[in-house]
Amino acid sequence: MDRIRPNISMAVIRRLPKYYRYLGDLMEKGITRISSKEFGRIMGFTASQIRQDLNCFGGFGQQGYGYNVKELREEIGNILGLNRRYNTIIVGAGNLGQAIANYSGFAEAGFILKGMFDINPRLIGISIRAVKIMDIDEMKGFIARENINVAIICTPKEGAQDVANRLVDAGIKAIWNFAPEDLNVPDDVIVENVYLSESLMVLAYLMNQ
Amino acid sequence: MDRIRPNISMAVIRRLPKYYRYLGDLMEKGITRISSKEFGRIMGFTASQIRQDLNCFGGFGQQGYGYNVKELREEIGNILGLNRRYNTIIVGAGNLGQAIANYSGFAEAGFILKGMFDINPRLIGISIRAVKIMDIDEMKGFIARENINVAIICTPKEGAQDVANRLVDAGIKAIWNFAPEDLNVPDDVIVENVYLSESLMVLAYLMNQ
Repeated sequence: MDRIRPNISMAVIRRLPKYYRYLGDLMEKGITRISSKEFGRIMGFTASQIRQDLNCFGGFGQQGYGYNVKELREEIGNILGLNRRYNTIIVGAGNLGQAIANYSGFAEAGFILKGMFDINPRLIGISIRAVKIMDIDEMKGFIARENINVAIICTPKEGAQDVANRLVDAGIKAIWNFAPEDLNVPDDVIVENVYLSESLMVLAYLMNQ
Repeated sequence: MDRIRPNISMAVIRRLPKYYRYLGDLMEKGITRISSKEFGRIMGFTASQIRQDLNCFGGFGQQGYGYNVKELREEIGNILGLNRRYNTIIVGAGNLGQAIANYSGFAEAGFILKGMFDINPRLIGISIRAVKIMDIDEMKGFIARENINVAIICTPKEGAQDVANRLVDAGIKAIWNFAPEDLNVPDDVIVENVYLSESLMVLAYLMNQ
C-alpha cells in the first residue's frame, strides 16, 4: 500500500478523482475488471494515457487481465487519502456555507463537519444538520479542542483574507476556499480554491463563440 | 471591440476571469494603469506570460505606458461575454440549488435567474429570492416562453443525465453542471462542470503529502 511515490504532476492528481468516480460507477454496474482500452473509452482518454497515469503510482493492471475494478478503486482512494478522517469547520454560514454543510459528497470524502462559524448574530446559535453555528471569536479555541484539520471558507471576498489569517494563526494547514480571493498563506498551508464565478465566466465565454 | 480572434487555448480562457478579478481589485484601489511586470507580480505570472495571454486578444498595452486598468477590464469583460444577459434556470432546488440561487456572483456575470425546477412536492411552489420553484414537468414550456439560454443542474448524480436530456430536448445549449456525472450531450451543447467532491479529494491528497 505505501509504495514510495515519485513526484507526480498536479495534472495527474486532478485526474485521480475522476478515475475513482468512474470505478465506483463500474462497481455499481457489477463490473469486476476492465482493460485499459475499455476504461479509456468510457473516460474519454487513450489506453496509453490510462496506463501512463496509473503507472505513476506503481501500476495496478496485469497484462491480458486488465484492472481489477474494486482493487484499483481502493488503491486510488488510499492514494487520495479517502481512507482517513478530517475534522472540518466551515467559516461563513450563509447560503453557500449552509449548502456545503448539507453537501453529501463531503462526508464521503472523509471530511467530518464539526462546527460552523460566522459573525452574524442572527446565524450564531442555530444548527445545520445538528452542527452548531458559533461566534467566530470562539474559533481558535474550538480548533485546538476538537483537533480540527481543515477549514472551509465560505465568506464573501471581503473578510476572506482576515479569516485565513485567523485560521493560520490557529494552526490550520488545509483550506478549501470558496471566496473569490487568492489567499495569502504560509508555504506549509494548502489552499484548494473553488472559484464559482470564474467557472461561470468561462461558460459565458464559450456561449459566445 | 469585435476584432477577429484566433483559436485561443482553454488554458488562456480559464485565466481570463482571474485577470478580470484582479483588474477589478486594482480599480477599487484607484489604480488606473499598470505595467505587465507589476501586473505579473501581483498575479503570480511572469510579465511575458501576461503579454502573451493578452496578445491572444490583440493586446491592449502600450510600450512605456502599460495597461489602462479600466479599459483592459472592460475589454476582457466583453471577451468573456459579461456585457450580455443570460436567462437562466436552476434544476434541482435542494440545498445546493438554493445556495446557487442566492449566489451573488451569479448576477454579476450577467446570469439572470428566471425559474427553478424540482420533482420534490415539498419544494414546488415555494420561492427563493422571489424566484418560484416549479414542477419539472413545466420546464420545457417555461424554457420556450421565457427564452431561457442557460440551465444549472444541481440534482444528485442520479437523475442528472435525465435532466440533461430534457434540457437538450427543450433547446438548451449551455449547462452549468454541479452533479458529479459526466453528461452526455450533443456536440453543440456546452457543459461547464463544477465537481466539488473532486476538488475536495485533491485537497485530501495534498494534505497527505
